[in-house]
Amino acid sequence: MQKKITIIGAGLVGSLSAIYLAKRGYLVNVYERRQDARKTNIYAGRSINLALSDRGWLALEKTGISADIKQIAIPMYGRQLHYADSSQAFYAYGKNDQAIYSVSRGTLNMRLLDLADAFDNVTLHFEHKAKSMDLAAGTVLIEHEGNDTLTHSDLVLCTDGAYSTGRMGMQLGMEQFNYNQFYIDCGYKELTIPAGANGSYLVEKEALHIWPRGKYMMIALPNLDGSFTCTLFFPFEGAPSFNSLQTREQVTQFFNEQFADAVAIMPELVDEYMRNHNSPLVTIKCAPWTMHDKFALMGDAAHALVPFFGQGMNCGFEDVRVFDELIDKHNENFTEVLKEYQTLRKPDADAIADMALNNFREMSELSADPMFQLQKKIEININAKYPEVWIPAYSLVTFSPQVRYSEALQRGQQQQRIMDTILQQPNISTHWDSNEIVEQAVAMLQAN
Amino acid sequence: MQKKITIIGAGLVGSLSAIYLAKRGYLVNVYERRQDARKTNIYAGRSINLALSDRGWLALEKTGISADIKQIAIPMYGRQLHYADSSQAFYAYGKNDQAIYSVSRGTLNMRLLDLADAFDNVTLHFEHKAKSMDLAAGTVLIEHEGNDTLTHSDLVLCTDGAYSTGRMGMQLGMEQFNYNQFYIDCGYKELTIPAGANGSYLVEKEALHIWPRGKYMMIALPNLDGSFTCTLFFPFEGAPSFNSLQTREQVTQFFNEQFADAVAIMPELVDEYMRNHNSPLVTIKCAPWTMHDKFALMGDAAHALVPFFGQGMNCGFEDVRVFDELIDKHNENFTEVLKEYQTLRKPDADAIADMALNNFREMSELSADPMFQLQKKIEININAKYPEVWIPAYSLVTFSPQVRYSEALQRGQQQQRIMDTILQQPNISTHWDSNEIVEQAVAMLQAN
Repeated sequence: MQKKITIIGAGLVGSLSAIYLAKRGYLVNVYERRQDARKTNIYAGRSINLALSDRGWLALEKTGISADIKQIAIPMYGRQLHYADSSQAFYAYGKNDQAIYSVSRGTLNMRLLDLADAFDNVTLHFEHKAKSMDLAAGTVLIEHEGNDTLTHSDLVLCTDGAYSTGRMGMQLGMEQFNYNQFYIDCGYKELTIPAGANGSYLVEKEALHIWPRGKYMMIALPNLDGSFTCTLFFPFEGAPSFNSLQTREQVTQFFNEQFADAVAIMPELVDEYMRNHNSPLVTIKCAPWTMHDKFALMGDAAHALVPFFGQGMNCGFEDVRVFDELIDKHNENFTEVLKEYQTLRKPDADAIADMALNNFREMSELSADPMFQLQKKIEININAKYPEVWIPAYSLVTFSPQVRYSEALQRGQQQQRIMDTILQQPNISTHWDSNEIVEQAVAMLQAN
Repeated sequence: MQKKITIIGAGLVGSLSAIYLAKRGYLVNVYERRQDARKTNIYAGRSINLALSDRGWLALEKTGISADIKQIAIPMYGRQLHYADSSQAFYAYGKNDQAIYSVSRGTLNMRLLDLADAFDNVTLHFEHKAKSMDLAAGTVLIEHEGNDTLTHSDLVLCTDGAYSTGRMGMQLGMEQFNYNQFYIDCGYKELTIPAGANGSYLVEKEALHIWPRGKYMMIALPNLDGSFTCTLFFPFEGAPSFNSLQTREQVTQFFNEQFADAVAIMPELVDEYMRNHNSPLVTIKCAPWTMHDKFALMGDAAHALVPFFGQGMNCGFEDVRVFDELIDKHNENFTEVLKEYQTLRKPDADAIADMALNNFREMSELSADPMFQLQKKIEININAKYPEVWIPAYSLVTFSPQVRYSEALQRGQQQQRIMDTILQQPNISTHWDSNEIVEQAVAMLQAN
């Protein structure tokens, strides 16, 4: 009999999982609380950019849609650092053509919805709100225009994001549900570098721009139209902070001091700063992710991450790919699929959640630190000579989807211990590019 | 103008805070979801015992009710350890008359309700459920017999326990609320040692009995009627566990092997084991605890602890005492009171939550470990000679209410580091009671 699947949430992970499950011939119903993003621009005034990297691409490729998505993605081959004195430096992310890709969340979501909608066995229901679920029975109570309907299915996937209704149902309805939501002291605000004449890019197009300033930073990702979406990551309290910068004068003075090169190409800066919302940044961890043989959390609903490793969407897409592989492995026995899905993915999501929290320091503080830059250069040397042996943690996470996040975390910690020892050598600043240093690091790694 | 106070929850912390605030002449309304425990025994079939220690007593004393409560409390001067071979050992908790006190949760709650009810300016509303709150306005929507009423007040104290409605309101209604609920792998089940002839006690009355068995343990606390309430702390899964002991035969065999001396005086053991619920054990941490100038979480609603340090109620009572002292300090300015209440109490609650988790190991695993017993003996020696300098962490938490939990945690960690060094000395097992060891430990402490 054709299996019936209910997906709650038609965001990035919900629509990708609809595509995967539709390809299996299942009958898929997707319920989304909001309006159809393709008809009414719910992203109006918000241009959220995401960095799609190899884990995301692999999940798109496995279901045959990576070429569709490549059309709306811009490669970024490295970090373009902008210092306070307006000098700049470029650090490649990896070798040659290794890149992460800037995509607009809204554009990507609409493309995925179109691809899902093209299947006869997928029905997208917008403005349908999941009010409650019976986790054991696999039923969901759906509200639409004031009417409630109870849906029955063989599997309920909850892909409704960080503020998931399904997860809240588990928190309220289960006797033992571990749950942790943790806000960092820092929030974000979106700003814009507009396109130049004829859609030209006013700073390097194929880079992720960072203005690292220790306790805070600004980043910028390219859009297809020549503009860049900038994000200011900034403390809520203290000085400087969102709280300390309230007036137009304060904003102007602060940006002139700290981001002079950007101010010159951000004509709407002060208006945008005053108008745009300050958004919080949350990490969410929970367990279990699955209930009985019918219910699973996926994507941000299971594991919301802070954005500093650019892995939130990639991790969610990887959930979908792994889940699909497990359906093959367990021959459509959903009880077994759900069990192994949780066993495999929970430690990986925990690992990338922790790495994402740590990476704020890497981006905002260490990028401005000469020792950090030296470490990066040494690691590039080691990696060039021993490309299969020493792969930096950033590369493992970003460009090595065959390596689990939990393994990347462990290997990264091991490498960091080795680099800490090497960076303490007295003459390292003159000696850093010697072959001896490379051999020493690799010997330490292999001795472990 | 007379200040109006709304208290949600008429449990231990709710009724004690009603007494404190009534003494100030405030108009106090207490809303409790359940029936009046004094009229219908909601504790029927559950005989939960708590250990009241000096922090709890201090809070009772400061509002003049400790003598009332002493009548229903049984002192326990130490731990009576019961080993698997049925041998026993007694370890005093502290010096001379230092004791913790066994009280029945139900009896204590009823006594506190009577004491609160005696005030003209306190009204207790049972079967009144707080449905929702407007945290900024300080209003609470109360449901009683199907009717909703909106209460207005100057202060709302949420003392409705680990599954607090008020805290859930903050989780759902605030933009940045940090929240962590964490279940350990172990749960508990209550059992009974009945009274002997004429209400006699079948094991030592004035002790907390522990059957330490490594990954699990049983404890027993005395009741006024000669019986003991036993609690089996046991893993949910694995072997042995609640899951592995399902049949009457399995239970009988296991208890005969592990708790032979107890089995002999527990005639209802197997029936109770089969009938009684396995309850989970949760730690809850959250922040903030207060909102605007009108709303505060208190007791388990703010900080649920596992029971292994016997501090859940004591910590809640200390919240009430500190809150009351801050009302004096800030001259009834609730904005300032709430601010300092949170600043003071949050780190202390975090500290005791962590110490409570660690103490499971101390009670269940280390109590059976000869090195642990040696450490205890050495610490008693040091403390006897330097009673003001070396106070064991257990004593700081239990018998030193002037020392904050957060300070007790730090001092305990420092002492543990010193004892770790001392216990590593090769001849420690013969040498442990020398004066040299005492002087060495104190010198290390003072060198820090």
